[in-house]
Amino acid sequence: MSDAPTAAAGMPLLDPASLEGMLRPRSVAIVGASNDPTRIGGRPLRYYLENGFTGAIYPINPNRDEIQGVKAYPNLSSLPEAPDLVLVAIPASGVVATAEEAAAKGVRAMVIFSSGFAEVEGGEGQAMQDRLTEIAQASGMRIAGPNCLGVFNATMGHYCTFTASFDLGGFPIPGGIAIVSQSGAYGSHMATLAREKGLGTTYWVTTGNECDVQVADCIAFLADQPDVDVIGCYIEGVVNADRLTAALDHAYQRRKPVVVMKVGRSAVGAEAAQSHTASLAGADRVYDSVFRRHGVLRVDTTEEMLDVAYACTRRTFPTGRKLGIVTISGGGGVVLADAATAAGLEVPAMPADAQRRLKELLPFAAVRNPVDITAQAFNDMSLVTKNVETMLEEGGYDFIINFFTSIPRSKVLNARLRPAMQEAQRRFPGRLQVMCMISTPEMTKEYESDGYLVFEDPHRAVKALAALCYYGEAFGRPPRAAPPAVPAGALPAPDGAVDERAAKRILAAAGIPVVEDRLVRTPEEARNAAAAFGGPVVLKISSPDIQHKTEVGGVAVGLASPEDVAVAFAAMSARVSAARPAARIEGALVSPMIADGVECIMGITVDPAFGPVVLFGLGGIFVEVLKDIALRVAPFGLDEAEAMIREVKGFPLLDGARGKPKADVAALAQALSRLSVFAAANADRIDSVDVNPILVRPAGRGVVAVDALFVPRQS
Amino acid sequence: MSDAPTAAAGMPLLDPASLEGMLRPRSVAIVGASNDPTRIGGRPLRYYLENGFTGAIYPINPNRDEIQGVKAYPNLSSLPEAPDLVLVAIPASGVVATAEEAAAKGVRAMVIFSSGFAEVEGGEGQAMQDRLTEIAQASGMRIAGPNCLGVFNATMGHYCTFTASFDLGGFPIPGGIAIVSQSGAYGSHMATLAREKGLGTTYWVTTGNECDVQVADCIAFLADQPDVDVIGCYIEGVVNADRLTAALDHAYQRRKPVVVMKVGRSAVGAEAAQSHTASLAGADRVYDSVFRRHGVLRVDTTEEMLDVAYACTRRTFPTGRKLGIVTISGGGGVVLADAATAAGLEVPAMPADAQRRLKELLPFAAVRNPVDITAQAFNDMSLVTKNVETMLEEGGYDFIINFFTSIPRSKVLNARLRPAMQEAQRRFPGRLQVMCMISTPEMTKEYESDGYLVFEDPHRAVKALAALCYYGEAFGRPPRAAPPAVPAGALPAPDGAVDERAAKRILAAAGIPVVEDRLVRTPEEARNAAAAFGGPVVLKISSPDIQHKTEVGGVAVGLASPEDVAVAFAAMSARVSAARPAARIEGALVSPMIADGVECIMGITVDPAFGPVVLFGLGGIFVEVLKDIALRVAPFGLDEAEAMIREVKGFPLLDGARGKPKADVAALAQALSRLSVFAAANADRIDSVDVNPILVRPAGRGVVAVDALFVPRQS
Repeated sequence: MSDAPTAAAGMPLLDPASLEGMLRPRSVAIVGASNDPTRIGGRPLRYYLENGFTGAIYPINPNRDEIQGVKAYPNLSSLPEAPDLVLVAIPASGVVATAEEAAAKGVRAMVIFSSGFAEVEGGEGQAMQDRLTEIAQASGMRIAGPNCLGVFNATMGHYCTFTASFDLGGFPIPGGIAIVSQSGAYGSHMATLAREKGLGTTYWVTTGNECDVQVADCIAFLADQPDVDVIGCYIEGVVNADRLTAALDHAYQRRKPVVVMKVGRSAVGAEAAQSHTASLAGADRVYDSVFRRHGVLRVDTTEEMLDVAYACTRRTFPTGRKLGIVTISGGGGVVLADAATAAGLEVPAMPADAQRRLKELLPFAAVRNPVDITAQAFNDMSLVTKNVETMLEEGGYDFIINFFTSIPRSKVLNARLRPAMQEAQRRFPGRLQVMCMISTPEMTKEYESDGYLVFEDPHRAVKALAALCYYGEAFGRPPRAAPPAVPAGALPAPDGAVDERAAKRILAAAGIPVVEDRLVRTPEEARNAAAAFGGPVVLKISSPDIQHKTEVGGVAVGLASPEDVAVAFAAMSARVSAARPAARIEGALVSPMIADGVECIMGITVDPAFGPVVLFGLGGIFVEVLKDIALRVAPFGLDEAEAMIREVKGFPLLDGARGKPKADVAALAQALSRLSVFAAANADRIDSVDVNPILVRPAGRGVVAVDALFVPRQS
Repeated sequence: MSDAPTAAAGMPLLDPASLEGMLRPRSVAIVGASNDPTRIGGRPLRYYLENGFTGAIYPINPNRDEIQGVKAYPNLSSLPEAPDLVLVAIPASGVVATAEEAAAKGVRAMVIFSSGFAEVEGGEGQAMQDRLTEIAQASGMRIAGPNCLGVFNATMGHYCTFTASFDLGGFPIPGGIAIVSQSGAYGSHMATLAREKGLGTTYWVTTGNECDVQVADCIAFLADQPDVDVIGCYIEGVVNADRLTAALDHAYQRRKPVVVMKVGRSAVGAEAAQSHTASLAGADRVYDSVFRRHGVLRVDTTEEMLDVAYACTRRTFPTGRKLGIVTISGGGGVVLADAATAAGLEVPAMPADAQRRLKELLPFAAVRNPVDITAQAFNDMSLVTKNVETMLEEGGYDFIINFFTSIPRSKVLNARLRPAMQEAQRRFPGRLQVMCMISTPEMTKEYESDGYLVFEDPHRAVKALAALCYYGEAFGRPPRAAPPAVPAGALPAPDGAVDERAAKRILAAAGIPVVEDRLVRTPEEARNAAAAFGGPVVLKISSPDIQHKTEVGGVAVGLASPEDVAVAFAAMSARVSAARPAARIEGALVSPMIADGVECIMGITVDPAFGPVVLFGLGGIFVEVLKDIALRVAPFGLDEAEAMIREVKGFPLLDGARGKPKADVAALAQALSRLSVFAAANADRIDSVDVNPILVRPAGRGVVAVDALFVPRQS
């Protein structure tokens, strides 16, 4: 996909209904329609005809009166009406004129297959694509592509695509899954896999170069469709972060799960994605945090994408994570318990009472959970029902996985097992149940029609359930806390290098507590300042020309007495002057020594896709060696700030590990959210900010930033 | 499975050929043979007959002359010969007598389906099973089971099993995969999946309660079979660690890859495994280290097990990790690059020259790697061949994945594509190539017969290749270094609590450098000792009754002058006496203060399955907060010790992170391997040992253990 950042950047989310003409058209014109049903201009017409599309079809071709048996027209102007949708399958050179003609006629939407636009380096491509963007914006006609594989809506025979994959296995099955892909071929790959697995996919959109319609627009449209259960996206890069987050918010408000395969995690992958798109990648971990914040599940593999999408079609998103396991193989139970634990599900034991009752029902069974009913349970299938019912009723499990390996493939056994399992569903319709078995497509359909999810592999079943929990938890979250207001008297980020005092003044004005200090110019002043503070102090050289004070011997800590400070001042002045003869030295700062704080780091970076991002980590080895940091796009409120703090692996150090008191996480969260507000307000002025260290004192005592480094944006 | 630890513990690996009679019998007797082909005693006979087993079959049944058309015998004694194998499908009560009869007759092997042995709590089960173990050991007759699902050898119609899974999809396909499972039902599940996926599985063994034949024996036997490519194991627990590691060594020597699904990683899973077996679990991370050390790949999922096993049937184990990607979808290339990086493969760019040449061949292609030939390449298929050849020849890739989504399903295209791909294989037969496509079983077979591995999912293809690299690297490793010898003058671990001096004496005698010290009894002696060492010292209380010195104020560090030490001694003596009036205080130890060491921890624990285990970690938060430790079963040489050190996440701190000098990893490895030798020599005397801290000084300066705590074994 490709996008013209200048044209589209910062554009708000458009009215989702504006895609109506593209995805539910009453009439379609095909510019470049071909009589050869295997050609790019011939395939869509053939697909419409084969699938009984009920709207009007207008092949456009100046050389023929009829194409594939349908009356043809020489151009768009000669049509008896303005079609909802115009499909364009002609060489790039004629596309802009066609778009102008269509816009003038009042066409609502356009899908452009033609390539030769921004994806080609040099030449006219970019300019032609920019013109398409202008036409779309001026007219309100929505344009998908250019250089896309098209769209379909399987419920109405609307196959506006030239993918060859239908030849190799038939047309899609209508159903609650929607697919949006920046890559045409990979989008087609996913749709083909969905069909192979029997998963219904009504809507499918490939966005190609995204001159107008972006993945974000499609998400917003699909979130509004009552027949969509879940939206699966393949994304390589996003220029328009605001539009994407607005669309994800829209889907979240409608409780429509979005599952995303955002590729380019690896350096090679990102480069490959870049080179065949014109989008900005953005840091991979920033995407992670954006998706998590919007309740979007990011998956790594196509299989997981389809497994999750399939599970979402049950439209049940549990609020708990308690898994009950019924198995006819002890081994299967152990495998499932391991998989569940790894996926963050709980496998709690049945209550003792219920265990006793189960043991009476099934004397040969293990009854704790996993409940191993063994194949002997098949002697009286009502015991299987009873067992599952007891688990749901008394164990209170949020969902059950029934592991039956290939046993249901025995016709004799299945004729008795299926009614027993139907019965087990009946009384608990809201509770998810999975049949985990080596199945046939027919048997899968049967159990699905009874309300079961069917998976072959235990691990994949468990991961899909965990995904449903992820959505259940996201949908159940309280509304996000608002970011704090910009404080009265807030200062802007500096234009150039500033010394520590100025940096701390800016932080303080942003509402972030900083350590007290006094600027001293003589040993005598240093002695007095230390005496005024009382207790041990820190002495640091003060110069706008010296940013890394330690390197020049410009920091002395733990100075116990006023006399020590005076001596240290004299020595430091001499040392620094010798090391940096040209530096302007204002004197030194005396600050109280804070001994009870945990060293942390917070900072700001600017992501190419998402703008200002706040990062947090513990000091020292945590950030430098272990890369243990949390990120959030700015601004955010206290809830996200606290989530960031709890996200790092070193969090136990703030939470009372190693016998230390719990640190003031609330004050730290406040500082982070305030820094995020500062970041948002100064997005165009800063390149990066490092607050290092910020000391987090025991609960109730707050935080103090000790030093900060501002790097202004290079204009 | 279940095992009698007392009977079998410490047993060496038996002659693998002793399983010949069980897995390649010339004659089989079926005790409890039934005329009803759906019953446990009837199924195996039916399977033999349906599959044309060519050996002699002797149904044993006192009540009938003929069973399923085969002449029957009243008992084993009446047989015309001693059969190689006796299958037992009678109630538990008659099994011991049958085993005695069989042993007396000279039978080579026995498979016991019957349940009611050690898996049942209380009653006679355990005693009867112990008796079976005795019979096996006394006679040399090998016994699988009891309570197992049997064994098969698919090349000779030897189906000594009552699994019902054949009814539901046919008999296994012979081939290079062997499956060994402690769980009958899960073993059957794996075999069924293998058959469904078209994977040939000649050998299959379920070991049940393991009264005699253990998973280890099967691994050793299968490693010797020329028709076995790979051994897949499902393991719940291992009592006989020595036999297992001996078997894994045996397989390693023969370069037969072993892939293991060791379940019970999670607490619930481990408990479920325990409750339906009698085996000892052992710490999960110890299993990890044992498998890694023996070149065994541990997988978590059944799918991964079968994917890896499938890939191993090519018998090609690359020595490099360089992946070339050919794709007709840019998106597919990005997905593969991401997946490869995550799996530890490299995706290096083509050399610039070769890129230029490819660009001439395929002007529309991306040529860096991934090489995106786009669907346009299909216009001239010889270009596809040329492209792959160039990658293998000039890019030097160890393997290629060709991502074609569902395109080969087009008959027209495939008729041209397949010869082109055959050609691409021809010149580089040793290099692995994968077709990644949405395939049909027939198409899969075709490409497999051309030498390709076929995968549908890009991530699964990549993981399977990474597994082959894992084996390639393991098989290519130099022979393991021998553990160091026990030093002359080595001391045994103590019987009771010892003070720091005694503890350090034991360490020093084991060859581990310890910090110098002097025991002082007065402030004067303290002053003199400090003066003798020169430089700052550490003072620690010395008492056999005080193990945690810090808690009683019994440690003072960084004492700069002899006078400081004298003062500190007086204060410490008073403090400790007040805190612990009853403790015997010998004085205090003065040691030089080591300021240039990185604090590490090493120790010994005793694993219930694998015995003494050495652990290593960095000090402080690394072990306590991050649980960042490495483990190895003792004893081991320098190579394993160094691998342990490099395995922890904090290793950069020993490797020059944060501007510090590189630490003396060689000396640390020596200390670890010597500790492992001590652990092995004192396995029955210790419960645990903590050497904390051991200071690792800059390279060339060695390590010094500063303190140690020995906890003797509770007899």
